[in-house]
Amino acid sequence: MSHRAISTLTVRRSLSTPAAALLAGASIWSARGDLQRHFTPVLSKTRTPRFVSATTKSRCSAASAAAAEVPYEDPPVARQYGITIGDIHARRKRDGRLVAGTAATADIDSFKTFPAWRELPKARRWDHILSKESASREPCVLKQAAVHLKKPGLISLGGGLPSPENFPILSMSLRVPTGATEFTEAAAASEDGGASITMGKYDASQTLGATSGGSGPAEEYDLSIALNYGQSAGSPQMLRWVTEHTELVCRPPYSDWRTCLTVGSTGALEQALRIFCDRERGDTMLTETYSFSTALETATPLGIRVLGVEMDEQGMLPESLDAILSGWDVRARGGSPKPHLLYTVPSGQNPTGATQGAARRRAIYDVCSLHDVYILEDEPYYFLQMRPYQRDRPATSSRPAPALTSVEFLESLIPTFVSLDVDGRVMRMDSFSKVLVPGSRMGWLTASEQIVERFVRHGEACNQGPSGFSQAALYELVERTWGHEGYLKWLAHVRESYTQRRDILLDACVDHLPSGIVSWSPTAAGMFHWLKVDHTKHPDHGKRSILELEEEIFNLCIEKGVLVGRGSWFAAEPDQPQAGLFFRTTFAAASASAMTEAIRRFGNAVRESYRL
Amino acid sequence: MSHRAISTLTVRRSLSTPAAALLAGASIWSARGDLQRHFTPVLSKTRTPRFVSATTKSRCSAASAAAAEVPYEDPPVARQYGITIGDIHARRKRDGRLVAGTAATADIDSFKTFPAWRELPKARRWDHILSKESASREPCVLKQAAVHLKKPGLISLGGGLPSPENFPILSMSLRVPTGATEFTEAAAASEDGGASITMGKYDASQTLGATSGGSGPAEEYDLSIALNYGQSAGSPQMLRWVTEHTELVCRPPYSDWRTCLTVGSTGALEQALRIFCDRERGDTMLTETYSFSTALETATPLGIRVLGVEMDEQGMLPESLDAILSGWDVRARGGSPKPHLLYTVPSGQNPTGATQGAARRRAIYDVCSLHDVYILEDEPYYFLQMRPYQRDRPATSSRPAPALTSVEFLESLIPTFVSLDVDGRVMRMDSFSKVLVPGSRMGWLTASEQIVERFVRHGEACNQGPSGFSQAALYELVERTWGHEGYLKWLAHVRESYTQRRDILLDACVDHLPSGIVSWSPTAAGMFHWLKVDHTKHPDHGKRSILELEEEIFNLCIEKGVLVGRGSWFAAEPDQPQAGLFFRTTFAAASASAMTEAIRRFGNAVRESYRL
Repeated sequence: MSHRAISTLTVRRSLSTPAAALLAGASIWSARGDLQRHFTPVLSKTRTPRFVSATTKSRCSAASAAAAEVPYEDPPVARQYGITIGDIHARRKRDGRLVAGTAATADIDSFKTFPAWRELPKARRWDHILSKESASREPCVLKQAAVHLKKPGLISLGGGLPSPENFPILSMSLRVPTGATEFTEAAAASEDGGASITMGKYDASQTLGATSGGSGPAEEYDLSIALNYGQSAGSPQMLRWVTEHTELVCRPPYSDWRTCLTVGSTGALEQALRIFCDRERGDTMLTETYSFSTALETATPLGIRVLGVEMDEQGMLPESLDAILSGWDVRARGGSPKPHLLYTVPSGQNPTGATQGAARRRAIYDVCSLHDVYILEDEPYYFLQMRPYQRDRPATSSRPAPALTSVEFLESLIPTFVSLDVDGRVMRMDSFSKVLVPGSRMGWLTASEQIVERFVRHGEACNQGPSGFSQAALYELVERTWGHEGYLKWLAHVRESYTQRRDILLDACVDHLPSGIVSWSPTAAGMFHWLKVDHTKHPDHGKRSILELEEEIFNLCIEKGVLVGRGSWFAAEPDQPQAGLFFRTTFAAASASAMTEAIRRFGNAVRESYRL
Repeated sequence: MSHRAISTLTVRRSLSTPAAALLAGASIWSARGDLQRHFTPVLSKTRTPRFVSATTKSRCSAASAAAAEVPYEDPPVARQYGITIGDIHARRKRDGRLVAGTAATADIDSFKTFPAWRELPKARRWDHILSKESASREPCVLKQAAVHLKKPGLISLGGGLPSPENFPILSMSLRVPTGATEFTEAAAASEDGGASITMGKYDASQTLGATSGGSGPAEEYDLSIALNYGQSAGSPQMLRWVTEHTELVCRPPYSDWRTCLTVGSTGALEQALRIFCDRERGDTMLTETYSFSTALETATPLGIRVLGVEMDEQGMLPESLDAILSGWDVRARGGSPKPHLLYTVPSGQNPTGATQGAARRRAIYDVCSLHDVYILEDEPYYFLQMRPYQRDRPATSSRPAPALTSVEFLESLIPTFVSLDVDGRVMRMDSFSKVLVPGSRMGWLTASEQIVERFVRHGEACNQGPSGFSQAALYELVERTWGHEGYLKWLAHVRESYTQRRDILLDACVDHLPSGIVSWSPTAAGMFHWLKVDHTKHPDHGKRSILELEEEIFNLCIEKGVLVGRGSWFAAEPDQPQAGLFFRTTFAAASASAMTEAIRRFGNAVRESYRL
């Protein structure tokens, strides 16, 4: 097959995109000279010949064709997903103004742009794995009654929706960067790079009236709608944007995919676990050996058992996943049935920073298909996929990289699980937290109609969807100010900012950590850098446990003035002996000089423990 | 005892306050001439001699003393709760500036003003009723590590908090009424009645720096804090306000009470049910015969059985509650243990609009003490307690009532359950939805330290607390613009607005509903008006079930262009035969003329069904 050819092609075109690096696979990882410090000796072996998907192939071909032939207005690379931003604009123009008032429900299908989506097969049904809780959840009777509101002339004395005349906020304004110049804080504050955008209380109510003859302003969303009760799935206004963005980035290859807003991926994961896992059934969730601690802390009180799948620098190993599932013995597993749920963070995994390449994702998906496992794809760091780290990079790379077009940016991303998902076996969780603001407490998910329906029913009882302030603010920003094009450029800007931070942290690691003892694989996405400390070289090796050494080094770190994450905090199976001695660091928050100093302190803590 | 004396005193002073009406008890309810249409024949009988609590007594005495003697700066009625707004200002002045940066934890005790709170006894422990899920919930390891951040000079590479330089919002401004003139939309838009308030990204970060010598502006909260990750309990800045407000309104009579923010009371109830109820234990939740449908829909999928307690126009009957608990037979109840959880909406109950008077609340609390039942007090409509409805009211009452002082407003409110709560057996859920904006998806709760701690642990996994946009916006409004005084005046304004709406709806009921068939008890709080249709007078009585008649009338309503709520939607035990034929209406949303027309249509639907 064309693995080698495609890798070469991609690498030749642009070694600086992370997709290129990861498509190129292990050869890139092992070509990093003195930085070849893998934290596990396991190398990825693809067990399926389809490790480069059709989607990936067409992307790369289109990409190579793009450079020479096609004008910007009709970007060929975005075509890989079937649609372009231009197509979205055209569809919107055809559709006319979105009319959606208080607590309106959204018709997600009407927001899809790819013309042939109806011809795709439907997702599979997942009734056989729903929990008792989720299966027994009835629709909210008051929200159901809203169907009668469509009757012309009907007066509702039904739902207790407060009258917006009593909302004490007439308008909300935000000062934001327009992207016309740069996306920096200075640009946002300046006249030509920033703007103050305002949403009034009745901006769209006049528009709603306009459908019956009047002529109001052109706005489609306002505070009287956003700040009243809404559907737990989210407002049609935000869902339109989210659906379009998802189609642009992922385009799930089945027909009945849906989006709905979440109160952030932490909450979305909790809801998902309660939809798919059942305490009484003794269900097991599969995840990486080291996994996001909050995900583990969410699963345990629900009575869900957690099993870690071995991983390397590209994350979860499909061979290990297959071995666990193929050899599952219910009795030996204490009565737990064969797992049907996998939780994974494919890009910039928390805590290890591992990023699954395209082939790895395809292989994991194939194993899940084989064993009928449902996949929770948690992707907060998806858009923070970085160019490979180089110690001796050209001077230019210490300056910001030239701005990417939205097409180049999309081209640089590894395909998502949901873009491989012919079965509708993936729930993808997207987040604004890492790329806009965590405080929005708002994200979205993509899954099949059946699963989104269960999720929305759940949300009606447990949170009623995200804040209206958040929906209004993000609508103002990503819809009214930036649009899809501007948002993708913003993402490229944020990624560049984190890439520079990563480079500073990795430089410090090279400069300040005792080589031969501390090793790592340079992180290719996200916010985390995972450090392996070789416990076999500790003078007390064999006398003290890994956990004792970890605690000693952690305490020395605090003593010397640096806080790092202990590997054991992230162990999927904390009752099992630790496989190695690890620490998680982040380059997200501290300043450049502080990061360097912090790594120096960490190095000193390790040296002191090792008596060097 | 002094029941009669106090009632008379209060009623004489101000019959127009709802507390007065309800303190006066059944005599007020039965003194309503032609509007004496109780929807059940059951009259309240207080089974305990302590039906007027010490708190209530001192309130009334203080109130009567207030009018003549004491200057405004030291309001005596607020003294009933131990503190005044002036006391809060004085305590804040002593405490100095609140310094709380990103993801800071709040010390709730430091926000308490009542000087003797430490001398009160502690709440009881509730370990014996915690669910398996809640009891097994461990603290979030990453949030625990934050304790090390207090070490001076420590650099954190621990938590993956995004850098605020990448937050694309420089400032947020809101146009709001200041309350200097009126609270109307027109006032908010005007120069002397409104203001544009702004929160910048780094307003408080400079302040934080000021603690180490610099001099920044005086702000205590900014977007760099609000829009980053925070504690799931909420920001210290909002929690200070919420704690002060709670102390002013409720002052729980035990020492270790706490507050924490919620994502609204819908979500808070779901969390509470999972803290106190256990599917495997077969737990039962007690509530009113007719109860909030979303609460019922939340309980069922969790495997919680629901049992309805009989009610009258003052809500739940303590005698009925006592009878259920005293006679509990585990075997006859299908193995369900004696209930330990009561869910109630004391003011303007949803759906019946019933409001428990002070004596009723005391009696319910006493029954709960006797049987060791924990109380979930859901109070979204608490501040919408209205003056009694009069059909032939003086012309002046069609104009807005004269503005109340904050003290008069507090005086007019029936004491809360949590203000009677010597045991710490109450979780009170407060909401901004009905009095500010539902879209904030933010409220708060008050309970003992143990229960709040379990709640916060839960929130860390299932939602991470309310939106930062919501916290920032409401902080700007209630803290920076209004303060406690302004907020209480705003509440009085909103209450007056809903009172006028209620009067319009009730006038329409008097004018347009077939008397002798449709009856009601005028609602005294909230947003709902409950209509009883006498099914025994239906020509098909005995031939068709109540549910069939309900469906027929509902469909006729839709046909005639009015949407109302069906009583059966709210039945606590939907599998039991309906006790009567009821419909819920709301006066919250429709315009005055639309409400009147809607009730006329409802009357016609009933007449058609009854062949009149």
